[in-house]
Amino acid sequence: MTYCVGLRLNRGLVFMSDTRTNAGVDNISTFRKMYSWVKPGERALTLLSAGNLATTQAVVGMLEEHSKAADERNPSILETPSMFQTARLVGDTVKEVIRMAAEGGQKGESTFGATFILGGQIKGGATRLFLIYPEGNFIEATRDTPFFQIGEHKYGKPIIVRAYDPDMSFEEAAKLLLVSFDSTLRSNLSVGLPLDMQFYEDGSLKQGFERRIDQNDPYYRTISDSWSDALKTAFASLPPFDPRA
Amino acid sequence: MTYCVGLRLNRGLVFMSDTRTNAGVDNISTFRKMYSWVKPGERALTLLSAGNLATTQAVVGMLEEHSKAADERNPSILETPSMFQTARLVGDTVKEVIRMAAEGGQKGESTFGATFILGGQIKGGATRLFLIYPEGNFIEATRDTPFFQIGEHKYGKPIIVRAYDPDMSFEEAAKLLLVSFDSTLRSNLSVGLPLDMQFYEDGSLKQGFERRIDQNDPYYRTISDSWSDALKTAFASLPPFDPRA
Repeated sequence: MTYCVGLRLNRGLVFMSDTRTNAGVDNISTFRKMYSWVKPGERALTLLSAGNLATTQAVVGMLEEHSKAADERNPSILETPSMFQTARLVGDTVKEVIRMAAEGGQKGESTFGATFILGGQIKGGATRLFLIYPEGNFIEATRDTPFFQIGEHKYGKPIIVRAYDPDMSFEEAAKLLLVSFDSTLRSNLSVGLPLDMQFYEDGSLKQGFERRIDQNDPYYRTISDSWSDALKTAFASLPPFDPRA
Repeated sequence: MTYCVGLRLNRGLVFMSDTRTNAGVDNISTFRKMYSWVKPGERALTLLSAGNLATTQAVVGMLEEHSKAADERNPSILETPSMFQTARLVGDTVKEVIRMAAEGGQKGESTFGATFILGGQIKGGATRLFLIYPEGNFIEATRDTPFFQIGEHKYGKPIIVRAYDPDMSFEEAAKLLLVSFDSTLRSNLSVGLPLDMQFYEDGSLKQGFERRIDQNDPYYRTISDSWSDALKTAFASLPPFDPRA
């Protein structure tokens, strides 16, 4: 499994992803699931991936034109004219990778399935956030649904739904996502530390702040420990059930 | 889907279940998923069900010997010598119902699958809580894992894991389960009001307190409204992320 979130704020985007991949519970590894492409002053793109690791790595490889010699590469993901076209490029690429994997071999697209979150900005356009399906089509985050989760989204959703505010700062959003990830990490072994976090400031068109959070990260430890206490306090503040009422 | 919880406390058991059944999202109905059998002074049993409604109703029908004339019934669930034997009876019954449904018709046991939580006490024995699988085997709640959830368990699990205390009162436990159900109801359309709640006091060997909670229930409304605020306050009490740290 995997857990990744892309969150749209009024001031930009916040991304967070875990790094665990597993084939069964007895074969786990650490792989980065966050990829960035930046041309300063022109575009800044971030991609989060969930699903079959061979598929997601192949998609990123094709986007970066790894099949060409290093000096001949001119990745189209650095040339798309708009965020919409970029989402279409990623969607077409994942569809192509899944088609090739399924061809002449194992049937069933779900085997090779992968889902992506793409966010960023291209000069002249707005900051946008997309969810891209294995079928290659995609949806965009709106004011009504300002965030996307991929992978194991259930444990960590209630706190985002309740505490999200489009005006929140990057620092508050980082706290929100760490609480959401902490709830998920405690309940699903297939989501694991370290986490990758990135901020993108609307209009900046450059690589945003980035941080890798491992189990020794003091802020993560603070959140993880104090969220339990804060939840208990919140719970204690509610009136108890009265069977006679 | 469904959401049911059975919780073991030092003072007894607490049960809660939703009432929504659905075939797709465009065909929903309300069915009770909590069943009780009581012989005052001798036994008190409560069963919660999740899964195929035809299977769960058939299991309950067979346990109550609905196939016999009303005056010839002598349900074996009122005669088992121990909670362990009662769990075995329920397990054997579900296995039999699934076998009959699959025979000569559609294959695949999962189609007819159902899972149960059984709790209660029989005179001379301890209060016990079991989770019974579609395969007919079962596990018992222990001090390490003092509760069972069936159906859509993910959204409502983090708060139970964090706020549960074996010494809590029935009133506190009712509050805990309502918070857990509220988180689930907000995220999964296939879990729906009204809810059924029941307490069983260890050693009482009688029908415990029972309450049906619908959308107009004032306590449920209080919990639902104030939990959002309490969570926001709890979240605000954590220190924000500091990118310079």
